[in-house]
Amino acid sequence: SYHEKVLDHYNNPRNVGSMGKGSDDVGTGLVGAPACGDVMKIQIKVDPQNDTITDVKFKTFGCGSAIASSSYLTELVKGMTLEQAGRIRNTEIAKELCLPPVKLHCSMLAEDGIKSAISNYYKKN
Amino acid sequence: SYHEKVLDHYNNPRNVGSMGKGSDDVGTGLVGAPACGDVMKIQIKVDPQNDTITDVKFKTFGCGSAIASSSYLTELVKGMTLEQAGRIRNTEIAKELCLPPVKLHCSMLAEDGIKSAISNYYKKN
Ligand code: FES
Repeated sequence: SYHEKVLDHYNNPRNVGSMGKGSDDVGTGLVGAPACGDVMKIQIKVDPQNDTITDVKFKTFGCGSAIASSSYLTELVKGMTLEQAGRIRNTEIAKELCLPPVKLHCSMLAEDGIKSAISNYYKKN
Repeated sequence: SYHEKVLDHYNNPRNVGSMGKGSDDVGTGLVGAPACGDVMKIQIKVDPQNDTITDVKFKTFGCGSAIASSSYLTELVKGMTLEQAGRIRNTEIAKELCLPPVKLHCSMLAEDGIKSAISNYYKKN
């Protein structure tokens, strides 16, 4: 049975949604998990004065563990610098949520997503 | 992007829930997808007079395609005999929902689930 932290994020996901991609201060990451074919979109809004993440949104069609991993990640990165957020490892997320080994790829989707959003922001700026 | 039928079932899943397992006229299937680690529970209520499925419920922690596959399956099997329901193939489900090849294993979860529920019912009766 699933850990209560996973169920909490699954039933009550934080920061679900979308931002307009057009704006220069928004970075968009769109990634897929080869293991299961699921996809995830994460967007960050960045304060260019200090490279800090001021807002973050995600959307996924992935499983409960993917929803929980992304929801937890969005709470984690809000207020972080891009450098700090880029250093987050999926293993931290999996540990916090007590994900079983077979669901590690779901937390990988969250790590890949934030990295992809950061690199999209840098590309635009 | 996902087919509108998948989105419809995902946003509005039919027959989500649980029945008491104890009753003799209820068969419970609990199956997992090796490809992604997701799990699914399907329960059927059977009229023993004519071996017909009178009610069905499912629960899954799986992805959007798994939710849609199960939701569609529950609509399909209601009113079927056990024999008819046992002949449903995941390819029918995948075709109806226009699932991409990488998500075929999600529809397999639904086929495995109903078979497992049927065999559980037979075991009890
Ligand atoms: S099984 Fe695909 S993201 Fe979890």
